[in-house]
Amino acid sequence: MFETTLHIKLYDTDAAGIVFFANHFRLAHDAYEAFMKSIGCRLDRIIIETDYLLPVVHAEADYKRPIPVGATIGVSMTAAVRETSFVLSYQMKDEDGELVATLETVHVAVDRKTGAKIPLPKEIKDGLLTIC
Amino acid sequence: MFETTLHIKLYDTDAAGIVFFANHFRLAHDAYEAFMKSIGCRLDRIIIETDYLLPVVHAEADYKRPIPVGATIGVSMTAAVRETSFVLSYQMKDEDGELVATLETVHVAVDRKTGAKIPLPKEIKDGLLTIC
Amino acid sequence: MFETTLHIKLYDTDAAGIVFFANHFRLAHDAYEAFMKSIGCRLDRIIIETDYLLPVVHAEADYKRPIPVGATIGVSMTAAVRETSFVLSYQMKDEDGELVATLETVHVAVDRKTGAKIPLPKEIKDGLLTIC
Amino acid sequence: MFETTLHIKLYDTDAAGIVFFANHFRLAHDAYEAFMKSIGCRLDRIIIETDYLLPVVHAEADYKRPIPVGATIGVSMTAAVRETSFVLSYQMKDEDGELVATLETVHVAVDRKTGAKIPLPKEIKDGLLTIC
Repeated sequence: MFETTLHIKLYDTDAAGIVFFANHFRLAHDAYEAFMKSIGCRLDRIIIETDYLLPVVHAEADYKRPIPVGATIGVSMTAAVRETSFVLSYQMKDEDGELVATLETVHVAVDRKTGAKIPLPKEIKDGLLTIC
Repeated sequence: MFETTLHIKLYDTDAAGIVFFANHFRLAHDAYEAFMKSIGCRLDRIIIETDYLLPVVHAEADYKRPIPVGATIGVSMTAAVRETSFVLSYQMKDEDGELVATLETVHVAVDRKTGAKIPLPKEIKDGLLTIC
Repeated sequence: MFETTLHIKLYDTDAAGIVFFANHFRLAHDAYEAFMKSIGCRLDRIIIETDYLLPVVHAEADYKRPIPVGATIGVSMTAAVRETSFVLSYQMKDEDGELVATLETVHVAVDRKTGAKIPLPKEIKDGLLTIC
Repeated sequence: MFETTLHIKLYDTDAAGIVFFANHFRLAHDAYEAFMKSIGCRLDRIIIETDYLLPVVHAEADYKRPIPVGATIGVSMTAAVRETSFVLSYQMKDEDGELVATLETVHVAVDRKTGAKIPLPKEIKDGLLTIC
């Protein structure tokens, strides 16, 4: 399991006073970026340098409780590894340990030039296996 | 079916050159806001004035093709109405009519003060029935 | 003068109930993108295809009145053309014609490869002269 | 001087591969929020609980170098205190200590109900004086 802590900013919220539902996906992506960095596979390097890409093909979220501005959210992330793709599952909890949202993103490995699916690159797979 | 057209802006995209996956939910919400306005139930009024709220409790997206900067996207939206909630389904197509993404958001009607589920307000239900 | 109309979305606002100050710059950029399209110089094409770029080197805003969620904002834009750069000035007004904000962005033409300043490309200059 | 470190996320950037110019203001606001928290004046509490607000009345930025995705940016912030307002100045530097941008935001203290300017609240003024 990979864990990180996020601080909700004013601009994460909207006029309803809570985090805008689409921004939960941004927050989940923060955790994903932090995880990738932790396994030595920085996303910015992947976008620029590698011969593969890892686009998101599916994303979903279940919202349990509204997240107010100023909240501190703990995110824990686990992975499921498949042949050419992986699934990340996120749990978001508030300071009291209450579950505020669960999310899932599915990423597929594709050849940068052809766009065809490819087996998960070894460095990605090895990193993911540490949080399966 | 409710239909609207969206223009992808530079800030909808990221360094990978395509729309960031979380922003598809913002774009879907654009269609939702436009629809609500069309049925006389402006979201900004609901947030400020009514005794109910319509929070999103579930959202999901399937990404079929990357959306490049500068694209014009047609969104068509249909609804399914339940007792205390409704489901909106979105299809996003590019200029060539190719499907680029499908999304779904589930909204529940709650009492503003207690947070308890309530039957869908009549004006919302009547509006939604026009696109069921 | 180039004029366009913008609809303030829920996600443009924050928990204070008004447009987040940084988002005024996004809105101004919406007007800029629409203008560039109108003169046949689509920004997305410039980013991908041309041998020059037009980065923003300065931006500023004066906020006169808060913009609430759901507002419709009229933006009028004028340009000042220099040798290697141009200045865009934006006025934002609400439905009552009240000034809500003024903004300015300064863009410089640079060679994509070297990053060196270059004279404004003719198609850009000609387009800008129509709103000087 | 108040100092903080920011990690540039994929969604801070656009299709040009660098941080979108409006997002520098969001990043500066991150530093502002962190500072306010450090002096015991959390912005989320101000928005909800106090009888004053601190709206931004002016903002500006000078962009020196593009900020790429994945960058780590050091922000140092200083303040100038006036009777009813304050000015925050931000310097953003990259990992090599190179200046990438300078920004300024001007905030005015207003009565929440009347919107009239008021003297800076003591807790805000005292906090700001520590970084003047």
